[in-house]
Amino acid sequence: MKALKSLLILSLIFWTPFFAWTQDEDAFFIRDIYDHSLTTGQCYPWLEHLSENIGGRLAGSVESEQAISYVKDQLMTLGLDTVYLQECEVPTWQRGSTEIVRIVSGKGKAIELKALSLGNSEGTGSKGVEAEVLEFQNLDDLKAADPNSIKGKIIFFNRPMDPRQIRTFYAYGGAVDQRGSGPALAGRMGAAGCIVRSMTTRLDDVPHTGVTVFGEDDPKIPAMAISTNDAEKLSQKMQNGTVKIYMQNDASVGPRKKSYNVIGEIRGSTYPNEIILVGGHLDSWDVGGGAHDDGSGCVHAMQVLHTIKTLEYTPQRTLRCVLFMNEENGLGGGKAYAKASNSAEEYHMAAIESDAGGFSPRGFTCDAEEDIFNLKFTNVVKWLPLLEPYGLFLQKGGSGADINPLKSQRGLLFGLRPDSARYFDFHHTENDRIDAVNKRELELGAAAMTSLVYLLDKYGIEQK
Amino acid sequence: MKALKSLLILSLIFWTPFFAWTQDEDAFFIRDIYDHSLTTGQCYPWLEHLSENIGGRLAGSVESEQAISYVKDQLMTLGLDTVYLQECEVPTWQRGSTEIVRIVSGKGKAIELKALSLGNSEGTGSKGVEAEVLEFQNLDDLKAADPNSIKGKIIFFNRPMDPRQIRTFYAYGGAVDQRGSGPALAGRMGAAGCIVRSMTTRLDDVPHTGVTVFGEDDPKIPAMAISTNDAEKLSQKMQNGTVKIYMQNDASVGPRKKSYNVIGEIRGSTYPNEIILVGGHLDSWDVGGGAHDDGSGCVHAMQVLHTIKTLEYTPQRTLRCVLFMNEENGLGGGKAYAKASNSAEEYHMAAIESDAGGFSPRGFTCDAEEDIFNLKFTNVVKWLPLLEPYGLFLQKGGSGADINPLKSQRGLLFGLRPDSARYFDFHHTENDRIDAVNKRELELGAAAMTSLVYLLDKYGIEQK
Repeated sequence: MKALKSLLILSLIFWTPFFAWTQDEDAFFIRDIYDHSLTTGQCYPWLEHLSENIGGRLAGSVESEQAISYVKDQLMTLGLDTVYLQECEVPTWQRGSTEIVRIVSGKGKAIELKALSLGNSEGTGSKGVEAEVLEFQNLDDLKAADPNSIKGKIIFFNRPMDPRQIRTFYAYGGAVDQRGSGPALAGRMGAAGCIVRSMTTRLDDVPHTGVTVFGEDDPKIPAMAISTNDAEKLSQKMQNGTVKIYMQNDASVGPRKKSYNVIGEIRGSTYPNEIILVGGHLDSWDVGGGAHDDGSGCVHAMQVLHTIKTLEYTPQRTLRCVLFMNEENGLGGGKAYAKASNSAEEYHMAAIESDAGGFSPRGFTCDAEEDIFNLKFTNVVKWLPLLEPYGLFLQKGGSGADINPLKSQRGLLFGLRPDSARYFDFHHTENDRIDAVNKRELELGAAAMTSLVYLLDKYGIEQK
Repeated sequence: MKALKSLLILSLIFWTPFFAWTQDEDAFFIRDIYDHSLTTGQCYPWLEHLSENIGGRLAGSVESEQAISYVKDQLMTLGLDTVYLQECEVPTWQRGSTEIVRIVSGKGKAIELKALSLGNSEGTGSKGVEAEVLEFQNLDDLKAADPNSIKGKIIFFNRPMDPRQIRTFYAYGGAVDQRGSGPALAGRMGAAGCIVRSMTTRLDDVPHTGVTVFGEDDPKIPAMAISTNDAEKLSQKMQNGTVKIYMQNDASVGPRKKSYNVIGEIRGSTYPNEIILVGGHLDSWDVGGGAHDDGSGCVHAMQVLHTIKTLEYTPQRTLRCVLFMNEENGLGGGKAYAKASNSAEEYHMAAIESDAGGFSPRGFTCDAEEDIFNLKFTNVVKWLPLLEPYGLFLQKGGSGADINPLKSQRGLLFGLRPDSARYFDFHHTENDRIDAVNKRELELGAAAMTSLVYLLDKYGIEQK
């Protein structure tokens, strides 16, 4: 144990022993990847167009069609072997133009709360809903309540995201059941409406939208998110007695529609049947510009191919950039892609999704079928000395919602993990715009993905 | 070699062997430190006051006096053993109200360039200076030029910061000689004035100030920085022939003045003579609010003591928070502190400076006298398994300008290393304000420093 300790400490101080195993060629090529990404990368202007000229692009919207056409055209300029659209089916939803949540009881005049309708929810109609509001911290408390006390009320879920989580995605995961499943539960218990505290650790005036899910038989009660400041204010008002809320919105679910994933590909020179996928999702919420979520992921993936082509690297394996449709409210694109891939008996040796923003990259998490993870990841983690100079880790963890169904093909799935501190300042808000994305941080993310793609392509993931 | 390789790879995948050496108690206490910092930390409101209510606080200014008084008062609320001011001498400098750099030759009307006078430079007087401009990429090229060709001209240094550097501070280090020494060299060669491309990798309209240094006998020619967009524009104009510039500014050096470092201390219960210093510099440039540079460093250091007191941890060693005056244009505070400390025969077992912004912390670099570095750092780097869950590294590297003179006391000097991607977007500009600092990122930096302080205090740095 003592020898091990000394060895490890030594290696932590002097990286040389690590580097001795790696080839200088790889270190130089990864340096070239970073140099290119940081000087002549196109990801930032692409993102600017997507998020500002096109803007929010919910599946099925006109903007989503503009985005499909734009990224297809851009991929076609890169000299790839093929660029094509892949059909998928998506739900449609319109926010409408009215989003009112108002405290109407108590002395003085009504207090307007900043609110956004939740995706896939139905509006109140023009009359709106007025009722007493009841606060809950979690779904279990609501389930345990007397249904008679819930009937006709407006349910208010107000459990904050836990700021103590270092990775804010865990804080999101720990709170988002309120938005995702809260309205349906409230509806089943007879509530007249549901409002949810916005999903962010910040205290501010910006409401965050996002999907909510109703079962086929659930009453489709109106559901909206209010800003964290307003959630605090409402909760405080309720300390002094009964509070009534008026809600009015005109969100509506439309018919299902045909849409598309956008795919660009360089065929592998030696192992064309071993696919390395890079991807993000092209759809976003309708508010804001979908800059971090997930315009950044799309331009990261596109930049990988741009860099590979510019550096005139000939991949042995097939590199495929997939820009998925409808991650936000149904995963129509991801499902269609996996179905087609499985039908064609494809093998995704690796897939990397970027869907955690355009912030400084911290590393990659890796996922695979339980029985093969250790075996295959061992072959990958030995590249760490080549990635650590760029501040990147490789750890076990999740990948991405769009690529997750590919796990059954028994390759390795990766998620790019940018620094998460700021992500939920912008997520699903009006503020998720290009000015929230730093050009260097975005470029560093693309370079990180390209470096991993290069190593995956060159060495594969099988035990040698 | 093969066995080493396997061991290291194993340890990279499964951290367990590392953790086995460390005590759960430490992991829990560090978790407490983060929990406190992320929920009840005061660093963000402190920074908001410093950068917005007080604002830019150049050494010797009224604002610097307000800042001294404010942080002293805040430290006095923390229940420390002592809070005091330490006298130091600082230069004074006034920017004045006129800052004109104008292209006056060529067709059409004059073109105004966005400019800021450089710190410690003297203005042109009310008549200004008009002369032909000559562009140089570096000091050596100017040195090699025929002095007759330089006489009476305005010298324009235009070498960009290298965007390929992953750590932007290296890019800064590779370009800043133009600002620091360029004007003095140009003056010695007979130039009438000097303009310098702003120190940032961004292309934008925001000029960056900063110090320039003239020797006692150097002609004090006027010296200003122009924005990177304007530097590009000017360079382009010069492609088409001779360009004349008009410069006018009224910056002036004032008399030297008395000022203060602010110091707060918890005396060690067991080894009071072993000092652990945490610090940043309280002065900033006069433009902007000095939020990242270096209000963040000050509130990081203050937050360390706040957290230690709130968690009721009794340090064995003396913890000292030092907020240094005059880092930006003379290091008066750092010099005075080291002089007093050496006179008192103090031993700084460790000193940590935060002077790289309030961004997400990536780790610490460590510096010491050559002959003791390996021996002492080996005792520190074994704590890495406790810090890595928070995304922190420990590496050899520099510390901070204010604490650097303490190296001769033969302890370890550390620099907090936040993510550097955005630092030079704000550095020394009007935009270095509270809205450029993310609350969580700031709090994470304070927690990182506190965790290292806790381990230093508990275990010391000597071989056991």
